[in-house]
Amino acid sequence: MKFLVEIDIMPRKELLDPQGKAVTNGLHNIGFTSLDNVRVGKHINYEVEAESENAAKEQAENACKKLLANLVMESYHIHISAI
Amino acid sequence: MKFLVEIDIMPRKELLDPQGKAVTNGLHNIGFTSLDNVRVGKHINYEVEAESENAAKEQAENACKKLLANLVMESYHIHISAI
Repeated sequence: MKFLVEIDIMPRKELLDPQGKAVTNGLHNIGFTSLDNVRVGKHINYEVEAESENAAKEQAENACKKLLANLVMESYHIHISAI
Repeated sequence: MKFLVEIDIMPRKELLDPQGKAVTNGLHNIGFTSLDNVRVGKHINYEVEAESENAAKEQAENACKKLLANLVMESYHIHISAI
């Protein structure tokens, strides 16, 4: 079966996010004053041929641990859907 | 009401994504050969005080158009949840 894997990789809550802070200021400056706590991370998606949703998820976790995410500074969230 | 706004900003399908191509190759090289078409974009989230989910969504679309996304090269997807 073919799956679409979507991964969000975000800076950990405990850490400063300078890019997010810059975007917060930018949005405030152009009039979006009601929003706050902008955080900026990566969104990665790919297609994969796997036996089951669980197999695809396990593989995605391995890919995050080995290459995609820096677990010291980032956390990831995986979402899988059949295509 | 307070909402959590999550925005995915991805390079348009018609365009090359060199970063995604590099990640595809990297994953193939470390043994993840069953996956393909990796695309890398941004994931942005923030908190906002708004009257309704629709108001929050409209504001997020404006923020995408004015600052967050380059609509020539990128498309965005907005997800709103109450917090």
